[in-house]
Amino acid sequence: MTTFAERLDQRVTAVDSLVCVGLDPDFHRLFPAGEPASTGEAADAIVRFNQIIIEATSPYACAYKPNLAFYLPLGADGVRALTETRRLIPAAIPVILDAKANDLGHTAERYAEAYLDRWGFDAVTANPYLGEEGLAPFLRRAGKGVIILARTSNSGSADFQDLMLGETGLPLSDLVATRAAEWQEAYPASVGLVVGATFPDHLARIRSIAPSLPILLPGVGAQGGDIAASVRAGCDWNGRGLIVSAGRSIIYAGAGAGTGTAAAAAARDLRDEVNRYRVNTTKPTGRSDQAISS
Amino acid sequence: MTTFAERLDQRVTAVDSLVCVGLDPDFHRLFPAGEPASTGEAADAIVRFNQIIIEATSPYACAYKPNLAFYLPLGADGVRALTETRRLIPAAIPVILDAKANDLGHTAERYAEAYLDRWGFDAVTANPYLGEEGLAPFLRRAGKGVIILARTSNSGSADFQDLMLGETGLPLSDLVATRAAEWQEAYPASVGLVVGATFPDHLARIRSIAPSLPILLPGVGAQGGDIAASVRAGCDWNGRGLIVSAGRSIIYAGAGAGTGTAAAAAARDLRDEVNRYRVNTTKPTGRSDQAISS
Repeated sequence: MTTFAERLDQRVTAVDSLVCVGLDPDFHRLFPAGEPASTGEAADAIVRFNQIIIEATSPYACAYKPNLAFYLPLGADGVRALTETRRLIPAAIPVILDAKANDLGHTAERYAEAYLDRWGFDAVTANPYLGEEGLAPFLRRAGKGVIILARTSNSGSADFQDLMLGETGLPLSDLVATRAAEWQEAYPASVGLVVGATFPDHLARIRSIAPSLPILLPGVGAQGGDIAASVRAGCDWNGRGLIVSAGRSIIYAGAGAGTGTAAAAAARDLRDEVNRYRVNTTKPTGRSDQAISS
Repeated sequence: MTTFAERLDQRVTAVDSLVCVGLDPDFHRLFPAGEPASTGEAADAIVRFNQIIIEATSPYACAYKPNLAFYLPLGADGVRALTETRRLIPAAIPVILDAKANDLGHTAERYAEAYLDRWGFDAVTANPYLGEEGLAPFLRRAGKGVIILARTSNSGSADFQDLMLGETGLPLSDLVATRAAEWQEAYPASVGLVVGATFPDHLARIRSIAPSLPILLPGVGAQGGDIAASVRAGCDWNGRGLIVSAGRSIIYAGAGAGTGTAAAAAARDLRDEVNRYRVNTTKPTGRSDQAISS
């Protein structure tokens, strides 16, 4: 069985792109004149919109990432739109469900069953606050990916993630990265980390802690993260291992009949910009921080 | 507009009970002979099962708490079962959706729209890892409750929640409780905390940090938390302010035709046991830790 990390890497090679398109359609925005007649109508509109985005951007996408939050306001119809969207994406492209999943192990098992087994997503984002026991149901699924929040891209992320721990002298998010690297050794699933592009220095430090884990990088588009600094800091020794996620700046690049063309151009431009800063360095031979020197 | 905390308190008085029933039906368990023919059939069975549990236990329930994870494996039909279940619960009984919600503010807004505005839940559990900015969409909703994970009941909770922070000398979960008490002053929603019954000493410390916040206490049933110690440590100065949550030990107390009768007895017994340890102390007049001396 190929791992999630292997399938992601194959796709990165195939399209020479680190760009992940966030499929986060706000149905309020798809019905600017007011509420749709029903949640079913709104869900159908979301699926059609996503289909346009997927067809337009797939030549430039190493992955897609729908966020569960944008589907649930439509209730049962929203989940239908999400699972239909998943099926629209070609099998060669890994799909990450951004659910920031977290619960006690016994209950997290049900989330893993939903998101990974039944809905067919290749990977899920997960919140580490409940510890290894709560993440284990995801980590035990061979062939799947578990992308663990380390330092999120929002301004509030400093409240807890950036707190210094007494014993280690590390901030909390660095310890999460340390533990995630250990979990990669202990479990069959592919383990990744979420680190926001809004904190490139922190990204460099986390890359040195976890030299070989894929890092999902939100925050480059509408949130204004620094692409050059983030790509230089976040790629692994091979100029890879970074999943550069952008949602609004791609899916809303155009409107109406121009939606697909503009989204394709935005995805291609982001791919090209990211590729300008990807560096190939020599494989580290012992010093784990060599991966981030360029 | 009454607050969530006021409505909860009214219900506690009406039934003289701190018991919250966890509506976490595992559909695998409802179809012991194998998979149901369809997710629709499984969802219908869950709604019927929940209806039996609700009718049987409502005389002893101060709240209900369905966990989203037990519904999502059924996809769209699962969300239908969840929202139908919510509508089965009488308006006088607050309903907490256990979703451990978390995302950046812009995205968390969509979760708040789904869980609190559209699906009609009175409160939601939320994971604090993304900080105040991520919790604000929930905290801004007047009349609703936001119950924030502090120290969860699982064994893995020590991995991060129990780490000592350098500057304050407090473990992470105590700082979460400190911040939650501040958020109660700054936002209109009612703020609560989740603290597992599996850590009664920690519960006592968190009660002293947040003397007046409602505490949701999971872990007393199947997880084996100590009821006497937890109720003594977790009630506020008035012998209230604690939501004692039990799922499996109530909903699976019986089986088949005996499901309702056994669930009612289990809920009543838990109410009575909890009430034996509720203490009324004098209202604290300055020392915040007076609330936990008995």
